[in-house]
Amino acid sequence: MRPLVLTPGCPLGIGPEVAARALAEVDVGPVLVLGDIDAFRASSGVESSRVTMRGPALSRPAVEWAALEEAVGLCLRGEARGLVTGPIHKARLAARGFAFHGHTDFLGALAGVDAPVMAFVGGGLRVALVTVHEPLARVPGLVTTERVLATLRVVQRDMRAFLGIASPRLAVCGLNPHAGEGGLLGREEIEQIGPAVVAARAEGIDARGPVSAEEAFMHPETSDLVLAMYHDQGLVALKRVDFGRTVNWTMGLPFVRTSVDHGTADALVGTGLARADSMVAALRLAHQLSPR
Amino acid sequence: MRPLVLTPGCPLGIGPEVAARALAEVDVGPVLVLGDIDAFRASSGVESSRVTMRGPALSRPAVEWAALEEAVGLCLRGEARGLVTGPIHKARLAARGFAFHGHTDFLGALAGVDAPVMAFVGGGLRVALVTVHEPLARVPGLVTTERVLATLRVVQRDMRAFLGIASPRLAVCGLNPHAGEGGLLGREEIEQIGPAVVAARAEGIDARGPVSAEEAFMHPETSDLVLAMYHDQGLVALKRVDFGRTVNWTMGLPFVRTSVDHGTADALVGTGLARADSMVAALRLAHQLSPR
Repeated sequence: MRPLVLTPGCPLGIGPEVAARALAEVDVGPVLVLGDIDAFRASSGVESSRVTMRGPALSRPAVEWAALEEAVGLCLRGEARGLVTGPIHKARLAARGFAFHGHTDFLGALAGVDAPVMAFVGGGLRVALVTVHEPLARVPGLVTTERVLATLRVVQRDMRAFLGIASPRLAVCGLNPHAGEGGLLGREEIEQIGPAVVAARAEGIDARGPVSAEEAFMHPETSDLVLAMYHDQGLVALKRVDFGRTVNWTMGLPFVRTSVDHGTADALVGTGLARADSMVAALRLAHQLSPR
Repeated sequence: MRPLVLTPGCPLGIGPEVAARALAEVDVGPVLVLGDIDAFRASSGVESSRVTMRGPALSRPAVEWAALEEAVGLCLRGEARGLVTGPIHKARLAARGFAFHGHTDFLGALAGVDAPVMAFVGGGLRVALVTVHEPLARVPGLVTTERVLATLRVVQRDMRAFLGIASPRLAVCGLNPHAGEGGLLGREEIEQIGPAVVAARAEGIDARGPVSAEEAFMHPETSDLVLAMYHDQGLVALKRVDFGRTVNWTMGLPFVRTSVDHGTADALVGTGLARADSMVAALRLAHQLSPR
């Protein structure tokens, strides 16, 4: 079996130790750990028949940057079957010239994908976002029919391809309270989101909505995924229930990529307090989604 | 003991039957049911030493409207110790000339309070909202230092007065993802919300923030109440966990008012499927909060 490639992320954070701990706990087939070897080895000390590690051959201003770029190459060439990422530290990378807001943008650029979709799995929910790291004031202008429809297409495609759900049921949130209450509390549902749902249905996508976010998240059993319009609408519900075991899944890439949902948590390094649950969940999901 | 006054709400909805069922289940001292007597009696058939019922003496275009107005009069004159409301149907009332968006606005107008604060209790959380039924595009402009500070003052006062928490710990959410990430994802945290927190602290209010909404809701044990900036930010987390037992608490009024968190659910009337949990919780909370 081809390996999953795991990038532990920033060597100064908890990424290397949660990666080591998670790999000791789960068997997801062969794993290639690509990053700062010393940081990882200090945490684990154990290579095994399943786990190999090496530093990136590429030279970049930071080892985690080079590792990520090399890992994407392995996935694109089919030498690895999927990518699992630990936390990077955006400000530290930005100081070295990294011009991306985060993993997702960078992976999209490397893979030649304009609009990867950020999705999350955890707490009995799957959630994807139409907009992600945008000031709230910009969100209403970005929630267009085109963008909602494009996101629905990516979600449908990836849920078929990787989860094997032939016709995933997609609950589409409104933008406004109570999904606009028939236009009383905003018109984006009528003018933008509703038409996207109609167009998606015409393409055979089993989308419904716009529904109020409260309703979508109260009854998660009625859909296979909730499409939220913006960051807090989608993530608060998820993290409230299951923080620490939530996994980030990037849809729209030509390969599977999952990630922990936490940051580098520098203050926890070496204390033994950092939990590996999210990394364990990220490895398991990548193993489940990736072709063998 | 003075009674709590309960208005079952729209006589065509589930309000009367959940009121009857809840009153059979909990003992919160004497209760005066004020509304459509026939609808209530059809559901319960039982008056008791604790529960009395009557129709409103006021004449208004709808019985639930008259009942609400009369109930507020009883509370303001100290003849009732608090108000518990069932669901009204806004569109049906609007068709009869009711010019308010809902209960909260109407109660504020009757009590001479400019800006009552909508709060919710349930699922181990207390949440109050700075803005409520506003289109999302209007929210950033409404989240001003003045408004956030005014809301914090009301919340502090009512948590002291009714819950007896001398110095409630208030977690104040940001408006933007990750609370603006130091200005990268929006400046309202720096320009509006942050200064409100500073001003509140100078007045002796134990407010902290702005914090990201995810963080505020992930760690509810670190605060006595989370102040959310807008509807979906506050309500999705709450309803995800505990829909059906969440109670609406209106802060800033000169009396206690609690309410169910559901609508009239006309389709459930008479089916026996309507659950009374939220009304039970609303009665219990009013009983706990109201002076004897």
